[in-house]
Amino acid sequence: MSEHLLRDAVPRRAPYPGTARRLAAEALGSFFLFGTVIGSGIMGETLAGGNVAIALLGNTLATGAILFVLITMLAPISGAHFNPAVTLTALIRREIGAGEAGLYTLVQLAGGILGVWAAHLMFELPVIQFSTHVRSGAAQAFSEGIATFGLIVTILGTVRYRPAWIAPAVGAYISAGYWFTSSTSFANPAITVARALSDTFAGIALPDVPLFLAGQIVGTLVAVVLCQWLFVAEPDEG
Amino acid sequence: MSEHLLRDAVPRRAPYPGTARRLAAEALGSFFLFGTVIGSGIMGETLAGGNVAIALLGNTLATGAILFVLITMLAPISGAHFNPAVTLTALIRREIGAGEAGLYTLVQLAGGILGVWAAHLMFELPVIQFSTHVRSGAAQAFSEGIATFGLIVTILGTVRYRPAWIAPAVGAYISAGYWFTSSTSFANPAITVARALSDTFAGIALPDVPLFLAGQIVGTLVAVVLCQWLFVAEPDEG
Amino acid sequence: MSEHLLRDAVPRRAPYPGTARRLAAEALGSFFLFGTVIGSGIMGETLAGGNVAIALLGNTLATGAILFVLITMLAPISGAHFNPAVTLTALIRREIGAGEAGLYTLVQLAGGILGVWAAHLMFELPVIQFSTHVRSGAAQAFSEGIATFGLIVTILGTVRYRPAWIAPAVGAYISAGYWFTSSTSFANPAITVARALSDTFAGIALPDVPLFLAGQIVGTLVAVVLCQWLFVAEPDEG
Amino acid sequence: MSEHLLRDAVPRRAPYPGTARRLAAEALGSFFLFGTVIGSGIMGETLAGGNVAIALLGNTLATGAILFVLITMLAPISGAHFNPAVTLTALIRREIGAGEAGLYTLVQLAGGILGVWAAHLMFELPVIQFSTHVRSGAAQAFSEGIATFGLIVTILGTVRYRPAWIAPAVGAYISAGYWFTSSTSFANPAITVARALSDTFAGIALPDVPLFLAGQIVGTLVAVVLCQWLFVAEPDEG
Repeated sequence: MSEHLLRDAVPRRAPYPGTARRLAAEALGSFFLFGTVIGSGIMGETLAGGNVAIALLGNTLATGAILFVLITMLAPISGAHFNPAVTLTALIRREIGAGEAGLYTLVQLAGGILGVWAAHLMFELPVIQFSTHVRSGAAQAFSEGIATFGLIVTILGTVRYRPAWIAPAVGAYISAGYWFTSSTSFANPAITVARALSDTFAGIALPDVPLFLAGQIVGTLVAVVLCQWLFVAEPDEG
Repeated sequence: MSEHLLRDAVPRRAPYPGTARRLAAEALGSFFLFGTVIGSGIMGETLAGGNVAIALLGNTLATGAILFVLITMLAPISGAHFNPAVTLTALIRREIGAGEAGLYTLVQLAGGILGVWAAHLMFELPVIQFSTHVRSGAAQAFSEGIATFGLIVTILGTVRYRPAWIAPAVGAYISAGYWFTSSTSFANPAITVARALSDTFAGIALPDVPLFLAGQIVGTLVAVVLCQWLFVAEPDEG
Repeated sequence: MSEHLLRDAVPRRAPYPGTARRLAAEALGSFFLFGTVIGSGIMGETLAGGNVAIALLGNTLATGAILFVLITMLAPISGAHFNPAVTLTALIRREIGAGEAGLYTLVQLAGGILGVWAAHLMFELPVIQFSTHVRSGAAQAFSEGIATFGLIVTILGTVRYRPAWIAPAVGAYISAGYWFTSSTSFANPAITVARALSDTFAGIALPDVPLFLAGQIVGTLVAVVLCQWLFVAEPDEG
Repeated sequence: MSEHLLRDAVPRRAPYPGTARRLAAEALGSFFLFGTVIGSGIMGETLAGGNVAIALLGNTLATGAILFVLITMLAPISGAHFNPAVTLTALIRREIGAGEAGLYTLVQLAGGILGVWAAHLMFELPVIQFSTHVRSGAAQAFSEGIATFGLIVTILGTVRYRPAWIAPAVGAYISAGYWFTSSTSFANPAITVARALSDTFAGIALPDVPLFLAGQIVGTLVAVVLCQWLFVAEPDEG
């Protein structure tokens, strides 16, 4: 069974990258991913003249596209998690150590929050702010559970059977998730926290964060268990 | 001539998966596909402020994207039918047995209806509901005939000549079909029945279902016959 | 120098297909291509509530997607021309004979017009109609010249250097062309004639057809000459 | 270490192309790229009835699509820079000589400005015009710095690890950039100058050009330094 399934999604042609480069890749990717989620939300809301569907179209397009780009170039270095739910998945599957998983989560948060603040700077908004966007209720938690479950299944299934397509698959999954879930598929605990720091289109009020995190963690765990059976690693694969 | 053309679209690296895993893959894929069709329709209609074209753009983007994702990761297990018209095609071509075809159809319906109900739950709508969206008349049946004919031709042609591109090809075909047919290309008997259980954007009133099914079955049969000649399997392919 | 450059864009695994299958592939592809151009135009115009940009977005998405699908599966049979400008290019480059080129053009027109009429039937419009959509003036002819020049350069360059990407490249080029040219990039003499038979979003008044054809032919010829030098076929390629 | 990293992104099957063909490829690509940016902006603004978000959607779609097409077919000849910031990157990395870099920049500007003028001609606007679109302030310069930094990182990372995906990666990056930066990611000094010559949707007033150029150059330099470490060229790659 492959020890480093997620990291090996894209064949590496270089020696195994060191920790500093792996953490830098996670930080850089989270910076651009979170910055894009927030920035394109601001752009969409500003330009769409009140039509939220059009704002969401721009938000979707930008998020899906940047995910494709970031995973394409950074997966060979760090595995391109940008998401503690993915890092948790790798931890459970013993593809990453507990210490490294903690560091991954830290730089995802740090890099991502810098990305949110960079978006505020670009759009001349106050850097430090807190969202007032209420996203509460059991349906939202259920929605995040479904969204994160689907994301982890997508990653594990695609890495298992079609590793070269992991970048477009994740970009496409999140693009769909923005529309088929009522919560617009945050599906990422770090981005949930970071979005609480932006009182813009993609924000979430701080009191609603725990509910989202709960849904995301449950979704992750259910997906990991299911995939252990569904995408079974055959012995002939070494 | 290849015995399992549809299932082998994506090269498998694992032993032939057992029936339970194949049925689970069909149920899981149908859950996300049907849930996306309904969920993104609700999202689009809710946000678009009455502009149906914008709602349809979101519905199209989400459906095309999730089809690409689901086929990419599940085709190696079950063939990624998610559609009794595709299963019927495989049955006629003797790529699947009658018993397995029946089970496929059952889990497509069951998984798909659960997906519809999950979408209702996410958007805080009553789980059990029935569509009142009238889609009647010969033009609608003709439209479904064309839509399903094109889908089956797309699958058989792409699997025949460019199997690695089957996932983006089917996603792109349905994306186009949402716009070039007047019925928005259901092209799937199971999704037609499941949509009757949702009084939302993507729904269809129950009395109109038989007409859609008739168009879909005729379109499937004509496509199978045409492709038997057009995409001929040469003997040199074993 | 490759004799059948366009036809070999996608590697064939089968014996060279006979004339009947090649013509059938051209007719089938033109049927779906032209039907999609007209059908998605009707859908967009009907739903967009007067916002022509939104209608054009749907029209663009559907046309780009169906081009990708049709070229993917039909290029191995006929070369997936669906366009007399492409057939003319193949004729000048001696990749197709004059007789076959004439037959290609005939079935492109016949299959395409059937596609237009099928779109009318699907949307319950009179089958036989004539466009009143005026598209006149030198700027429109210049626009068609640029559009067709770019299409032929795209085909010859991609077939020359990255043949596996020909289907997404042509789909993407026409998607861009719908927006960067003032004529919305017909770039196809057969579709120009067929669009004159539809008094809908994508139509063109019959008196304006010759101007479009002139621009398309000039654009084709300039592209063929430029590419003969720019995408030179080196002797080491056999 | 690879001497011609950018140029070799797409495997060439032909002898190394001569200077004339390389410059022609840069001019041709810049012509279509800049023409598409301006032309699709005009189209979007004209049709969108004042909804700037819809205009930007069309502008984004067209620009991303044409970048994918142009890089796919022209990278094997010239490296498909179309952008002095990319040429500067190649110069710093000693993948191109100073003389050739100067010629590249000249033909990017010349070809690109012809593209802008061609767009004006297609849309029946005065060929010679100057933008009055004010885009001033430190936030815009910061935005261009981020945008160009991300573009250079995308190019160097993708060329390093997944060279076959460079064309879709750059197209997707710029599509995202149009939405996540407040300046809509010009990220290209030549296009910045050329856009000053168009008083349309995508224009920029001449006095604001130096600020954009400054941001772009700083972003380029920071990216080159970071990537020298992050995407390290291992000795085992020859």
